Amino acid sequence: MRFVRGFPSTMMDEYQLNITNILRHAATNFPEREVVSRNLDGSLFRYSYGEAYERVSRLANVLEELGVDVGDRVGVLSWNTHRFFELFFAIPGIGAVLLEMNLRLHPREIAYVANHSGAKVIFVDESLLPIAEAIAPSIGVEKYVVMTDGETPETKLPEVYSYEELLRKASKDYDFPMVDETSAYAACYTSGTTGNPKGVYYSHRSMVLHSLIAAIGMGLRPEDAYMQLVPMFHANGWGVFFAATLAGSKLVFPGRYAVDNLAPVVELMQSEKVTATAGAPAIFLPMLNYLQKVEPKPKFNIRAWSGATEPPLAVMKGLKEFGIEIIHAYGATETSPLVCYNYVKPELREKLNEEELWELKRKQGIPVFGVEVMLVDEEGNRLPHDGKTIGELCIRGHWITGSYYKDARTFESFIDDGLLKWWKSGDAATIDEWGYIKIVDRFKDLIKSGGEWISSVDLENHLMAHPKVFEACVVGIPHPKWEERPLAFVVPKPEFKDSITKEELYEHLKQRFAKWQLPDDIIITDEIPKTSVGKFSKRTLREQYKDYYTK
Amino acid sequence: MRFVRGFPSTMMDEYQLNITNILRHAATNFPEREVVSRNLDGSLFRYSYGEAYERVSRLANVLEELGVDVGDRVGVLSWNTHRFFELFFAIPGIGAVLLEMNLRLHPREIAYVANHSGAKVIFVDESLLPIAEAIAPSIGVEKYVVMTDGETPETKLPEVYSYEELLRKASKDYDFPMVDETSAYAACYTSGTTGNPKGVYYSHRSMVLHSLIAAIGMGLRPEDAYMQLVPMFHANGWGVFFAATLAGSKLVFPGRYAVDNLAPVVELMQSEKVTATAGAPAIFLPMLNYLQKVEPKPKFNIRAWSGATEPPLAVMKGLKEFGIEIIHAYGATETSPLVCYNYVKPELREKLNEEELWELKRKQGIPVFGVEVMLVDEEGNRLPHDGKTIGELCIRGHWITGSYYKDARTFESFIDDGLLKWWKSGDAATIDEWGYIKIVDRFKDLIKSGGEWISSVDLENHLMAHPKVFEACVVGIPHPKWEERPLAFVVPKPEFKDSITKEELYEHLKQRFAKWQLPDDIIITDEIPKTSVGKFSKRTLREQYKDYYTK
Repeated sequence: MRFVRGFPSTMMDEYQLNITNILRHAATNFPEREVVSRNLDGSLFRYSYGEAYERVSRLANVLEELGVDVGDRVGVLSWNTHRFFELFFAIPGIGAVLLEMNLRLHPREIAYVANHSGAKVIFVDESLLPIAEAIAPSIGVEKYVVMTDGETPETKLPEVYSYEELLRKASKDYDFPMVDETSAYAACYTSGTTGNPKGVYYSHRSMVLHSLIAAIGMGLRPEDAYMQLVPMFHANGWGVFFAATLAGSKLVFPGRYAVDNLAPVVELMQSEKVTATAGAPAIFLPMLNYLQKVEPKPKFNIRAWSGATEPPLAVMKGLKEFGIEIIHAYGATETSPLVCYNYVKPELREKLNEEELWELKRKQGIPVFGVEVMLVDEEGNRLPHDGKTIGELCIRGHWITGSYYKDARTFESFIDDGLLKWWKSGDAATIDEWGYIKIVDRFKDLIKSGGEWISSVDLENHLMAHPKVFEACVVGIPHPKWEERPLAFVVPKPEFKDSITKEELYEHLKQRFAKWQLPDDIIITDEIPKTSVGKFSKRTLREQYKDYYTK
Repeated sequence: MRFVRGFPSTMMDEYQLNITNILRHAATNFPEREVVSRNLDGSLFRYSYGEAYERVSRLANVLEELGVDVGDRVGVLSWNTHRFFELFFAIPGIGAVLLEMNLRLHPREIAYVANHSGAKVIFVDESLLPIAEAIAPSIGVEKYVVMTDGETPETKLPEVYSYEELLRKASKDYDFPMVDETSAYAACYTSGTTGNPKGVYYSHRSMVLHSLIAAIGMGLRPEDAYMQLVPMFHANGWGVFFAATLAGSKLVFPGRYAVDNLAPVVELMQSEKVTATAGAPAIFLPMLNYLQKVEPKPKFNIRAWSGATEPPLAVMKGLKEFGIEIIHAYGATETSPLVCYNYVKPELREKLNEEELWELKRKQGIPVFGVEVMLVDEEGNRLPHDGKTIGELCIRGHWITGSYYKDARTFESFIDDGLLKWWKSGDAATIDEWGYIKIVDRFKDLIKSGGEWISSVDLENHLMAHPKVFEACVVGIPHPKWEERPLAFVVPKPEFKDSITKEELYEHLKQRFAKWQLPDDIIITDEIPKTSVGKFSKRTLREQYKDYYTK
């Protein structure tokens, strides 16, 4: 690809895409629109975009008083609250970088992230003080600001400030600078299963563009009420709260909640008349279970983006009964995250029957404007988009990372294409003739047998759909003739521990898979080894069984 | 305002916003979606985004073969057709600039535009050859490409090529470069009533951002069918066809049509199931008149942006009966054009009664994200947004021009605000506490009487609502005591030429205006002087009557 510079324009191209302009737009044009945030004690905090902007201005003054300079990194350990929302505008607003700290990581990893980014100050929710205290001795951060609704609790942290007290004392006027749009506005580290987290630094430009696309994709309007379910420390909380602010929608922050007690979240959805949200099967499955027990049956009118993993059909169908339409979306920390989301093209609505439509809705969807995708084989050769050929999904675009911050793993993660790069997602996918992406596996977990690919995820999902199976994991083991062959590991549900048989599992698999795709053995076991974040450790299994065919 | 450069991001910020990426996105992800174009003979041409992209690639090769270089300007004289659509991607695609040539201007002005821009090649629709032939001797353009469905007609033009013939011979493969996003993608010259047209050169960046905002504003989806009514030589055809392409909507180009024969347009709206469009009262009023005569009554489901002038209430209400919802929008050549559009905020829907809602819908609307507005007095001081104070509307943002190309009028048209500028729109407006902009007059046509403003447009509109009045024009005349006082000029409808009286017109005005706001005299006349584009020449009237109070 060539690069050319044409005739000069007369437009105000020097006007920078700045994340804080999103809130200023809302405060100017929707000053009265509401932002609702659930406090730790369950009470609700309410204010308007106009008031939010005033507090963000105070917060900008506070940051300067704390010694935060342009370019500094500022960590945040918080649930989804209005204060996290404020920090998302004030920190980049002064030209600094918000560090999204994933409170689910091991303290060792959180400390790594704080050190690797060079965080100068950390903002911490009072309920998360134990995490801050656990990492404090291993990191160089001197100042902590505690976000609390009441008195600041006792803490062992060094220099401690109260968020609300600082805000009260600060001036409400702040003259926000124009920030060069390629400056980082926030950073998020991957929670990869191997090695240390990798740093992705989002720019003002990339996030504003992402917000525009998310607003188009969700069709957000001032009439909407958007609930921020996705943790805001996960890939910008998927960025949809920015899109909702831009659109003048009402915002609802659920604060701290647990998936095994979703009553407060569901009540908030009802009382605040939520119309849009984003989450993952990890929350939508328990939400369905909860809704099926509640009386009287709640009825919503909600469109919900669902990411992270493929939403089970039963969850999509079940939630539809309650007026919650699950829209499958796909992305990663490296992609801001929106790569694609699923909708039924008008011409397919007529062609497909109901079951085919549901199958279609399970796909990851069609790339949004601003993102390009391609499939490549192990040598980096482009593969066809025919709905059958499996390759590694590679992505580039305005809000895709082009490197990892100070990380040599950058070398193995990108394909250089001259002027631009492609990010190698590590996901194995097909793309059909309509443009729908279907993720079939992690690329490294695909099993190559006799020149053909076998998806470990497909086998696992089908095994786990068997009524006696609790967990199932399939890995490829080196084979002298076929290159690799699949081995399955199955943990039965406790009540079927003694009655489960390999034969019935094979019968079950044969309904869907060809003979050569079946695992060579199904090993029934008590436990499958897991990683620190609870995923199957396929690496451990492959290591344990590497000599299965040769010994 | 300060400018700061923060911490570097890791994102692919070097990925440029390029207008041709919009069509590539549609061709990749909606390859089968339709584009329909009405030919000169009334027949319909149909193809898909995939096929459009192939023709655009051929066209890019054609441009290079014609000697068009990066940065060159290429003129287009055309109705709204698929070929104009193709040129909008191919010309900027190779790094050149599409010059939008307004075929409604006087040939002298069109020649000025061609010369001032330095156009190298001109593409002309066969039906517009007379215009090209009229200007050819006064401009330096050597090559003309004629766009025709059949044989190329005889012409006096120098070096003439056939669009379709060139395309047939060209390769369908073209490797589009990445164009620096601040390069001009197209240019449009204002059709100002005073002096020569002024050149506005839109960048790739500004138009892509504008397209994203237009897609949000119109809520365009793949299900939509968008009809391009606004001439594409007027401020990028309001840019909505780009937004529709980006969204994967179906596109409908009506080709040549006349407002006194809208049957073919209305039939196209019906047959192609149009759901969205954009136009002006100049077309929506005759459209309503036509619809009211047709049997059986057509029923649409269309949202229609209406710009240029305020849509009369009767037109909005009348079209609503046919399922066409008029959405008032506002902009100018200098603003790409979208500054704001009207929608009813959810909180107002409950507060206002039906008549108040209609009044609200007549306002120009609320600024979109990416655009800032302010009101200033004659000295440039900021004025409050209270719904009452009238000031000159000033605008800045990503798709607002920051200068006029090689034009000294740049000096008087902008307010310097340090890092950024404001464009002075020349429109007098109020902005209410909800953010709605209301244009009350051209700033120079406002009448300042005893320290208070009187809107000439308000008086004119109310006079023209009188059943006996055909045209009305109100101007401010210098007054020794009050500074200025309004004088009205009224042309009666032919049938009321002898029966119309000043008294009944004053009675009519008194229903709405205070005594001091009434014109000092209403002069009944046969004709009001007009400019070359048919607007009232208030300058002429002010000149003729400048001694009215002093002689």
